[in-house]
Amino acid sequence: MGDDAAVLAPVVGETLISTDITVLGVHLDPALFPLEDLGFKAVASAVSDLAAMGGRPRAAVVAVTSPPGTDLEELHRGIADAASMTECPIVGGDLTRGSDVSVAVTVLGETPGRGSVLRSGARPGDTILVTGPLGRSAAGLRRRRAGAPLDDPLVVAHRRPWPRLAEGIAARHAGVNAMMDLSDGLGLDLHRLAHASRVGFRLTDVPVAEDATLEEALGGGEDYELLMVTSDPDRLKAIFYSRGLRTPIDIGVVVRDVAHRTWRDKYLEPTGWQHQL
Amino acid sequence: MGDDAAVLAPVVGETLISTDITVLGVHLDPALFPLEDLGFKAVASAVSDLAAMGGRPRAAVVAVTSPPGTDLEELHRGIADAASMTECPIVGGDLTRGSDVSVAVTVLGETPGRGSVLRSGARPGDTILVTGPLGRSAAGLRRRRAGAPLDDPLVVAHRRPWPRLAEGIAARHAGVNAMMDLSDGLGLDLHRLAHASRVGFRLTDVPVAEDATLEEALGGGEDYELLMVTSDPDRLKAIFYSRGLRTPIDIGVVVRDVAHRTWRDKYLEPTGWQHQL
Repeated sequence: MGDDAAVLAPVVGETLISTDITVLGVHLDPALFPLEDLGFKAVASAVSDLAAMGGRPRAAVVAVTSPPGTDLEELHRGIADAASMTECPIVGGDLTRGSDVSVAVTVLGETPGRGSVLRSGARPGDTILVTGPLGRSAAGLRRRRAGAPLDDPLVVAHRRPWPRLAEGIAARHAGVNAMMDLSDGLGLDLHRLAHASRVGFRLTDVPVAEDATLEEALGGGEDYELLMVTSDPDRLKAIFYSRGLRTPIDIGVVVRDVAHRTWRDKYLEPTGWQHQL
Repeated sequence: MGDDAAVLAPVVGETLISTDITVLGVHLDPALFPLEDLGFKAVASAVSDLAAMGGRPRAAVVAVTSPPGTDLEELHRGIADAASMTECPIVGGDLTRGSDVSVAVTVLGETPGRGSVLRSGARPGDTILVTGPLGRSAAGLRRRRAGAPLDDPLVVAHRRPWPRLAEGIAARHAGVNAMMDLSDGLGLDLHRLAHASRVGFRLTDVPVAEDATLEEALGGGEDYELLMVTSDPDRLKAIFYSRGLRTPIDIGVVVRDVAHRTWRDKYLEPTGWQHQL
């Protein structure tokens, strides 16, 4: 800290880099949530991009804009909490004034031994799985709007998303063919994966989290569960089990026809979180 | 591109990372300059942070906020120009709406063989040098405000700052003790280097660029010339000469007393660009 750039020891294996920008009033409603949640979510969503590749975080830098009078200490508390919980040290930053409170987080990660998992490797016949039931974050936002307290468990799921780092590494070790994080909702992100892999899909089951709706499970973003595609789901589940991780849930299969993208035998309309409150 | 994070081959030697955020209306006056200049300056200032360590750029990611109606193609043209000129590929990004047009650039760099140069290594008796005369950027801004065209050479110096990458690498090879880039002006940055190294200085000469004033040379930021401190200025100059680089200019000496920070035998008031138009 204090120099023009931060200096790190050599990265192990492949280097990963990703950037995410989070804006107050766009990604978080200041009438409903404290400012520290903006900092937490900014770091968590950036770290989740590393989880989605099977990587691990190495370090992050944070660039903030804010108007005069912003409680930067509160914002920083959320940033520091997420950095600490994901073991991703903040090694540098920049701060300038602006009309918005915005937090741009860039994470540097590594995949020891290489083999970062891309979105583009899904093959016809592969099984599609997710790391957990969906819709908790969207349900938490709905409950908060209806007056639920900040410590309501679903509201906490919305405020404090947890990047699935251990799951991403386990999936990489299990040799999954494709992976991504569900940051914008299954109904949108599944199309993205299919597009990248030039395949179609038959979605058969959507695991809906307790107290969430099907619409929230399909369209709600920010659960940050991982979407995984593998030719050997039993091996994937065995590796998760041996590491004490929740068993991945089968949700469908990959098909050759890129135009075939169905849910309950009907075309799955792309729906998902479009960054609007 | 298209995956959650970009994957890079292993970095050579030390890894450097730095982030800079540039905001329209704060760092660039939209009444005087085209939007593409914002993109160019954002990338150039981030890459300059690598030059200041003696590093070289490896890749960058860019996070942009903008209100509806922003000409993102024009912004991108400036980003792409600077990335191309500094050979720093843009490998990922994020785009979201906001009230401001802001560009957060994070650069990843490397120092082969290690030995990144910090601000903290200056020692009493060392010679202080800069890579060139100062004040061109500030003079260009003044001339633009007075009606000079965008292609006036000094206005171009303001619009298209050039990171001193070759100079930074040469200085590292010459074994300089401390280095930084003059992004906020010599009158402020020299204090920062002295503070980091816990030393004082006696500034004896301020090289003023042609058509610039002394105030612009001392207080004008964004020249991005490098400030270098070495115990062997002859060796530094010989290495610059052999590489076809402009001869560094002596501007003063490092002294032991941290409170001694003089220019023409008077205390040098910290002055510099405070990010206000």
